[in-house]
Amino acid sequence: MKRREFFKSASVAAVGAAAATTLATPAIAQGNITWRMVTTWPKNFPGMGTGAQKFADRVGRATDGRLTIQVFAAGEMVPGLQALDAVIDGSAEMSHGTPYYWQNKSQGLSFFTGVPFGMTSRELTAWVRYLGGQELWDEIYDQFGLKGFLSGDTGTQAGGWFRNELTGVSDIQGLRFRTPGLGGQVWAKLGASVTNLAAGEIFAALQSGTLDAAEFVGPFQDLALGFHQIAKNYYFPSFVEPGLATEIVVDKAKFQELPADLQEIITVFSQAAYDDMASDMYANDPRALRALVDEHGVQVRQFPEEIVEAGAKASMELVSEIRDSGDEMTKRVAESFVSAFNLLRERTEGTDMPFLAAREKYITFS
Amino acid sequence: MKRREFFKSASVAAVGAAAATTLATPAIAQGNITWRMVTTWPKNFPGMGTGAQKFADRVGRATDGRLTIQVFAAGEMVPGLQALDAVIDGSAEMSHGTPYYWQNKSQGLSFFTGVPFGMTSRELTAWVRYLGGQELWDEIYDQFGLKGFLSGDTGTQAGGWFRNELTGVSDIQGLRFRTPGLGGQVWAKLGASVTNLAAGEIFAALQSGTLDAAEFVGPFQDLALGFHQIAKNYYFPSFVEPGLATEIVVDKAKFQELPADLQEIITVFSQAAYDDMASDMYANDPRALRALVDEHGVQVRQFPEEIVEAGAKASMELVSEIRDSGDEMTKRVAESFVSAFNLLRERTEGTDMPFLAAREKYITFS
Repeated sequence: MKRREFFKSASVAAVGAAAATTLATPAIAQGNITWRMVTTWPKNFPGMGTGAQKFADRVGRATDGRLTIQVFAAGEMVPGLQALDAVIDGSAEMSHGTPYYWQNKSQGLSFFTGVPFGMTSRELTAWVRYLGGQELWDEIYDQFGLKGFLSGDTGTQAGGWFRNELTGVSDIQGLRFRTPGLGGQVWAKLGASVTNLAAGEIFAALQSGTLDAAEFVGPFQDLALGFHQIAKNYYFPSFVEPGLATEIVVDKAKFQELPADLQEIITVFSQAAYDDMASDMYANDPRALRALVDEHGVQVRQFPEEIVEAGAKASMELVSEIRDSGDEMTKRVAESFVSAFNLLRERTEGTDMPFLAAREKYITFS
Repeated sequence: MKRREFFKSASVAAVGAAAATTLATPAIAQGNITWRMVTTWPKNFPGMGTGAQKFADRVGRATDGRLTIQVFAAGEMVPGLQALDAVIDGSAEMSHGTPYYWQNKSQGLSFFTGVPFGMTSRELTAWVRYLGGQELWDEIYDQFGLKGFLSGDTGTQAGGWFRNELTGVSDIQGLRFRTPGLGGQVWAKLGASVTNLAAGEIFAALQSGTLDAAEFVGPFQDLALGFHQIAKNYYFPSFVEPGLATEIVVDKAKFQELPADLQEIITVFSQAAYDDMASDMYANDPRALRALVDEHGVQVRQFPEEIVEAGAKASMELVSEIRDSGDEMTKRVAESFVSAFNLLRERTEGTDMPFLAAREKYITFS
């Protein structure tokens, strides 16, 4: 989709959503329940926004209308970065976002989104589902009366859009770069002047020259946001975001009041949504990247080795700092993450990587 | 679990299952439905057998007992490799296995399990769910009155257990090797004398000297089967099985007769099961491999480059042969697979692999 079309359809959708808002009071009629899901994403945003809507549609079909989930894009009910607070204060029953948006509530939450130079999409699910991650995550959210489920993953992201080519670490000094979360802290250690901006504000900031560079997700999303119109150097991969997991968060008390069958459907459908978004991204990223290169003259680049190495050093420092200075809960999360990471990389490096290297070297199917 | 314990618990379970069989007539009482799921796996087999049971348990909870799925291990109702026929002839309503077991019905089915030097676990879901794979799979199974859903993936497998160390292609000549499917055809091209045996028969064949080598899945499953007691050389990775997807297959007519909410639950829960089994394997493979090395003296090895290169050449030949000589349906599947593969590898090789290489080179979290 072209940027103009994307925002046009988004604003048309917003009008419809404003009307829907007046119907948003939770209703229990003839045993039917309506829940409001506030999201941190623009309406129908590729992968994330569409994934949230698909989840809601599936729940509607699987419960034969007993549980209807109304999806609100960022700004329709509350601004995107207030989605979790809306669940905490009872304005909504559930949210769709990503844990690291709430790291001001607990730094430990960042680990469930992704860590610079950390786990891949599949390593993360192995940790969360089979190596104790979910239990720690539950402990954090329990303090806020919430429960979280993984609901999607972007896979390894793109490194970002840069007006000028990067030759080494010296080019990063003072570079005004939009990149959030722990990844932003890594880039700050490398000398960048890091800021965060919501998805809808990045383009204008790049255009006006307020930003020198920006990263958001990957080709599938970035194409829709139109960054290629301003900056032509598209760097890969994002070493600070090897994956970005999204979450569905529910009001824990209201969740526990649901009939057990509906609780099971929300839980298992969130897991299916994880697979679905990751598949969507893997299928559509390379198609979008072909369009960016072939139709928009984008130059695909890899970061200079000097930057990658410095980024790795900064990432290791950051994880150490969090372990040493974080609160007790965050320390436990970091220790569990590192222990699982050290186990899981053995499989990735001993089995997956040698396979992929051989495939890249020898295989041409035609 | 030790081999002896595994088979002991399996035989105890079989006694319970024999009793359950007498209750296995499909029942519709007060709107409640019971479906029989025949599997190709030993009872509670790590990852696959447990995954099938977990799926059934989840469906039971999500439908509040409206749909009960009785799981039968290989041999309890029919032998494992007759599971699909049991659904076709109406003895069961669904099966849990892997598509390449049925390549005698259509060679195209192999592509949905995995292709030598082909797609990884995540690439496969991108193809099946977003690049037309499911539609082709539906066409094949439609001929048999069936519908299939992906229900799990092993990730990249281990290459196998070899009595003797391999130094090059010459060591493969006449080697009696248990390895099934398209992967077996690749090893046959390299000179091996290839056979297939069910899981429960491999150990005895290795022990008696009927086999020189065997591959089954990976450390998590192989540890339970005890191959390390006979052959100490454990090779990685399996270049012929970069992933192995499992399936849930339903009798299409009976599926379509189910209420729409139950159809949705089966569909989406199968997708969640894919994520769940893959996560289980990634978490438990490296733990099992540590046990094999530390407690059982297993020697982990990589195939000599000469064998990997010859395996790649044989895999390309095999895919070409299938495209050139297969039936019309198989040709279409092969063409869709190759087209999707060529797209998806661009993301894997341009984004995931450079990230993983940098992580391996620079990162030590402690």
